[in-house]
Amino acid sequence: MRTLGPGNLTSTRMRIEILCTGDEILTGKTVNTNYGYIATRLGEVGLTVHWGTTVGDDRGSLLAAFRQAAARADAVIVNGGLGPTVDDLSQEVAAEATGVQLVLNEDWLQRIEGYYKRRNRVMPATNRKQAMLPAGAEIIDNPIGTACGFAVTLGSARFFFTPGVPREMHRMLDEQVIPRLRALGGIQGVTRLKRFHSFGIGESRADELLNGVEGLAPGGGVKLGFQSHYPQLETKLAARGTDPADLERRLAPVEAEVRRRLGNFVVAEDEQTIESVILAALRACSGSLSTAEMFTSGAIAARIAPVAGAETLFRRGVVARDLRALCEAAGVATGAAEGVSPDTASEVAGALRDKSGSSHALAVLVDLDDGADRIDFGGTICIGIASREATVSRQSRMLGGREWVRLGATELGLDALRRRLLGLPVDERIDFEKR
Amino acid sequence: MRTLGPGNLTSTRMRIEILCTGDEILTGKTVNTNYGYIATRLGEVGLTVHWGTTVGDDRGSLLAAFRQAAARADAVIVNGGLGPTVDDLSQEVAAEATGVQLVLNEDWLQRIEGYYKRRNRVMPATNRKQAMLPAGAEIIDNPIGTACGFAVTLGSARFFFTPGVPREMHRMLDEQVIPRLRALGGIQGVTRLKRFHSFGIGESRADELLNGVEGLAPGGGVKLGFQSHYPQLETKLAARGTDPADLERRLAPVEAEVRRRLGNFVVAEDEQTIESVILAALRACSGSLSTAEMFTSGAIAARIAPVAGAETLFRRGVVARDLRALCEAAGVATGAAEGVSPDTASEVAGALRDKSGSSHALAVLVDLDDGADRIDFGGTICIGIASREATVSRQSRMLGGREWVRLGATELGLDALRRRLLGLPVDERIDFEKR
Repeated sequence: MRTLGPGNLTSTRMRIEILCTGDEILTGKTVNTNYGYIATRLGEVGLTVHWGTTVGDDRGSLLAAFRQAAARADAVIVNGGLGPTVDDLSQEVAAEATGVQLVLNEDWLQRIEGYYKRRNRVMPATNRKQAMLPAGAEIIDNPIGTACGFAVTLGSARFFFTPGVPREMHRMLDEQVIPRLRALGGIQGVTRLKRFHSFGIGESRADELLNGVEGLAPGGGVKLGFQSHYPQLETKLAARGTDPADLERRLAPVEAEVRRRLGNFVVAEDEQTIESVILAALRACSGSLSTAEMFTSGAIAARIAPVAGAETLFRRGVVARDLRALCEAAGVATGAAEGVSPDTASEVAGALRDKSGSSHALAVLVDLDDGADRIDFGGTICIGIASREATVSRQSRMLGGREWVRLGATELGLDALRRRLLGLPVDERIDFEKR
Repeated sequence: MRTLGPGNLTSTRMRIEILCTGDEILTGKTVNTNYGYIATRLGEVGLTVHWGTTVGDDRGSLLAAFRQAAARADAVIVNGGLGPTVDDLSQEVAAEATGVQLVLNEDWLQRIEGYYKRRNRVMPATNRKQAMLPAGAEIIDNPIGTACGFAVTLGSARFFFTPGVPREMHRMLDEQVIPRLRALGGIQGVTRLKRFHSFGIGESRADELLNGVEGLAPGGGVKLGFQSHYPQLETKLAARGTDPADLERRLAPVEAEVRRRLGNFVVAEDEQTIESVILAALRACSGSLSTAEMFTSGAIAARIAPVAGAETLFRRGVVARDLRALCEAAGVATGAAEGVSPDTASEVAGALRDKSGSSHALAVLVDLDDGADRIDFGGTICIGIASREATVSRQSRMLGGREWVRLGATELGLDALRRRLLGLPVDERIDFEKR
C-alpha cells in the first residue's frame, strides 16, 4: 500500500478493484449498474479504480478471483453474494480464502430477527446464514437490509463485502466503505460533489469553455468531469478540503466560474431537474401550464405533469400528429394553419392558453423530413410560448435520426419554457441545431 | 480446450472470458452495455461466459489481463482499444503478449482509405494505426467501421478483438465471432432465438407456467430463459438444430406450447412491440385512435403517436391531472364527473371518440393515494375504451410507489387497448394488481 501523507488532497495511488459476483451479472441477464455506480462514486471522492472482475456464483471462480485481487490490489470492493440462498457464497469463500472459520455473529442475528419482527414476520431459518461471518471480520453496518457487510484482509489487500441490492449497496458504500478507503489511502478531510445540468452544449465544447477552471481553486482540490446523457450534459466538480470551510473556500471560485461560463445553458443544479425548475417558476408566479405537441406526442407533458405537486400547475395537454387536428384541439380559429412555422406555434400556444385558462401555454410543432429513418434524418421544430405578457417563438432544425430529433425537440421545448419563465433569451443557439 | 463431439446441441463447457478495456468503462463514466450484450448473445447460442475483466487504457494492466485470461480461458473476447488514438492499445499489447511485431495490413489500410473516400474525406494520418496488426493475426471483418477485428492465440486461448462502438461490435459478434466460437466449442448446426413479450405475468409465475416446456423439443436443443423489463417480461427460447429444418422441428412444439400457456398475456413476438401490434390492428380495421390521460400524463400517447406510420392513425391526445379538466378537454357534458370510476372512464372515452372523430378512444384515469411516495404507495386505475361497437371498461389497483404505478398504468392502458382491438378479454387479472 502506497499510503500518501496526511492532508493530501490529490488522487491517491491506492489500487482499488471492484469484484462483482453473481450468475445473473456474469451471464448478462441483469445489467451490472452497481459497477458503474461504485466506480463513479470512488472517482468523485478522489479514489481510482484499477481493475474490474466479474465472476458467477461458483466457489472455484470466487476463490481464484479473491486470490488474484489480493495479489494486485490494495483494496477490493466485493459486491453481491451476501443473500440467504445457497448460491450466495461470499462469506463462505471469504472464510476459506483467509483460512478462518465462519462463526455466528449473535448481534447481527438479533438485528435480522428484529428486522422481521418489526414487519410482524418470523425470520425464515435460511436468513441465519446472513449472520455467519468469517472469524475476526470487521462488521460493516447495513441499516436498511438483512445482508451484513464486512471487511477482511487477504494478502496485503483489504476486502470490503457489500450487498448486491443497489439501495443497500449505495448507502453502505457512501457511509461506510468510502470513509474506510479514504483512511486507508491516507486521504483526509471532506468531499463534496457539485453538479450542473445543462442543455445545448456538447461535452467537447463544455470542456473547451471550462478550460482552466480547476486552477481557480486556491491550493487545488477541485476536479472537473463530465457525464453526457443526451440531450443533457452533467458537469461535475469533485471537491476536497480539510474541513467544510476549507472545501467551500476551494470550491466557491470554481463553482461561480462554471456557472458564469455555462451561463443560460445551465438548466438545473445538484438535485434539481429542468422539470422541478419549471414547476418552481410557475409556482412563483402563481402560474399554470398547458402544452400542445405534434411529433413529441405527449413526451413534454409526461415529463412535467406526473411530478408530485404538478397536479395544480399542469392544466391541459393536447397531442396530434396532424397540424390541422392540433389547431382544432387547441382551439385555433378554422383555416389559420398554413404549415409548421413560428407564427403557427405562437397561434396554437395563444389559442390553447385562452381555451385552457392557464397562465402559460407551450406549443412544440415539428415538421419531420420525409422518408426512412437514417443518420441525417431531421426535423424543423417551431416553438411558441404564450403568457399573460406576450407570446414568443423560436425555430430550430435538428438532425441525427428520428429518435434523436424526438428527444432533442422534447428538451428544446422544455428549455424554451424554462428560459421564458426565468426571463432568459429563448432563442440562444444550441450545439445540437443546424442553422 | 474441452471440445465436444460433433453434432452436439447442448451447452459447451468451453470457458469464455469477456475482457472490456477503456478508461471510460473502468471509471464508470460510460455504462458498460457491451458486456451485457456479449454475455447475453453468447448465452442465447449455447455458449457460457466464465469470467469478466475490466481494465483501463493502461499497457501494464492490459498485458496482465491478457496473460491471466490466457491462463484460465479457452476463448477471450476483448472489447475496445482498436481506435485511432494513442490510448487505444489493443493491437500493440496483443503483439507484445504474443511475442510478434505489429505489421501494416495493406488490405485493411485500403479499406480505411476507401471508407473515407466514399465520404469525400481524406483519411487522417492517425487512422493508419488501425491497419497495424500483430503479425500472423487472423483478420475479422468490420463492414461498417474502420476498426479492424482480429484473432490471435495466446497460451491455449483464442483471443478475439472487437471494436468498442456498439453497433460495430454487435455485427462483428453475431456474424463473425460467434460462428468461430461455436466451431471452437465443437457446436455444429444453426441457432435461433424466439422471443415472446408479455405483460401481466411476473417472472416467477411465468417460470412456473412454463415448467417442462423445454422437454417438448424432440431430442432437446431448446433452452428457456427470461428477461424482466418491468412492466414487460421477455420469454426467450434459444433453439439449436443441425440445420434450419431440424431446428424448426425441435422448436415448433415448444413455441406453440409457450404461446398456449402464456395465452392472452403475450403482447408481441420477436421484433414486434405492443405499439406495433396496436397500430397494425387499427390499420386492419381502418380505425384511428384518441387518448385521454390523467397521471400517465401523455406517456401512453408518447408510446403510440411518434411511431413511423402512426401519423394517420393517432388522431388526438388529451392530458389533465384534474378529472374535471380532463372531462372538459374530452368534451364530456358538464357536471358528469363524480370521481374516478369505470363509468367515468367510459364516459370520457365515449365523449372523446365523438369529439375527435376517431374510431377508438382510450381513457386511462388514475386516482392516486394521498401522501408521500413510499413502497406501498398506490393508485386506482380506471380504463375505458370506446369503439364503434361498444364501450368497455376495467378497474385495477396497483401498489409499489409512484413511478411503479405510473409505468404500470401506462402499460395496462396500452394492453387493454390491444386486447380490445384483438377481441380478447380486457378484464383478465394480472400479477401486478391487487384486487
